[in-house]
Amino acid sequence: MGRLLRANGVGITVLEFDSDKVEVLRSLGLKVFYGNAARHDLLHAAGAENAKVLILALSDHKQMLEIIQMTKKHYPHLKIFARAGSRTQTYNLLDAGVHHVYRETLDTSLRAGSDALRELGFRSYHAHRATRTFRFHDEESFNELHHLRHDRKTYISEARQRIKDLEQILLSELKEAEEHPDAGWDTTSMSDAY
Amino acid sequence: MGRLLRANGVGITVLEFDSDKVEVLRSLGLKVFYGNAARHDLLHAAGAENAKVLILALSDHKQMLEIIQMTKKHYPHLKIFARAGSRTQTYNLLDAGVHHVYRETLDTSLRAGSDALRELGFRSYHAHRATRTFRFHDEESFNELHHLRHDRKTYISEARQRIKDLEQILLSELKEAEEHPDAGWDTTSMSDAY
Repeated sequence: MGRLLRANGVGITVLEFDSDKVEVLRSLGLKVFYGNAARHDLLHAAGAENAKVLILALSDHKQMLEIIQMTKKHYPHLKIFARAGSRTQTYNLLDAGVHHVYRETLDTSLRAGSDALRELGFRSYHAHRATRTFRFHDEESFNELHHLRHDRKTYISEARQRIKDLEQILLSELKEAEEHPDAGWDTTSMSDAY
Repeated sequence: MGRLLRANGVGITVLEFDSDKVEVLRSLGLKVFYGNAARHDLLHAAGAENAKVLILALSDHKQMLEIIQMTKKHYPHLKIFARAGSRTQTYNLLDAGVHHVYRETLDTSLRAGSDALRELGFRSYHAHRATRTFRFHDEESFNELHHLRHDRKTYISEARQRIKDLEQILLSELKEAEEHPDAGWDTTSMSDAY
């Protein structure tokens, strides 16, 4: 991500707690500060006043929440993006005021699913569209379920209903695609699995 | 991923080693086998003979390698997709004969990077294209570096050169976009960061 941003002419500064990584990142020519990003003086030295976006990708969830709290207090202008490992962590981060949370394995998992669809003979166009639809509805229902999370019973029944709804949407898109087979992008034949 | 596939009418069978998860997956209506997927009898019971794709997403890397070895021996027709956490794990999986390896945090990281570009005022079209270019070249160089991995010195110098090359490619695309600002998808104005 750092490389993607830098390659687009964006000035990035890395705060890194792992001294081994600091060396590797510096050898790649990145501007790196070594230390705990939950420390106000480190964020200040790194130029947080003039930054626009703070991206958090730590494995230590508790420390991440500390950084967010400190950032909210001293640098309220910063947009905060953060990576989470689980649903619970995602909810905690949203509660803490993070602007966008990335669920760690969601994207990879969807890409593997999309490739599996193609391997089974689905058209690229369909695999791409189904994945996009899935992500859109999953994120939507994820955000809405957020508010129900303290009412476990309602949460579960609502979650199940949404899973059913999403499958209905995807199946009807699939049916539509079967009825209009020429609407796709590629012309490879479809296997039995389709 | 299971839900994405099922919603497209694909029959999926889950092998799960965590008994708590088994229950959740079953309550979602999935066909689940409980046990160690490295056991031949379990794979047989789950119908590996008639499957086309095996997707591995375990946190235990050693166990994953055992499953691959067993699958290669008894079910050589299966396409194997696997998730990896690190570069080293990815190389091990490729060496073991996995057909496609998904680096766990790559996709999420690129999506966060793309969102950060938009947040900084880049056009959606550019962010999307830059991310796609980045992924394409990164995967390409990843596969080529694979063969050099036992020659640490060459590996590092080659890796650095490729990082430089990729940044050059992206910067030249960016320059091109600036010269032809109407070629994009959306018409929001670009910020100073652009």
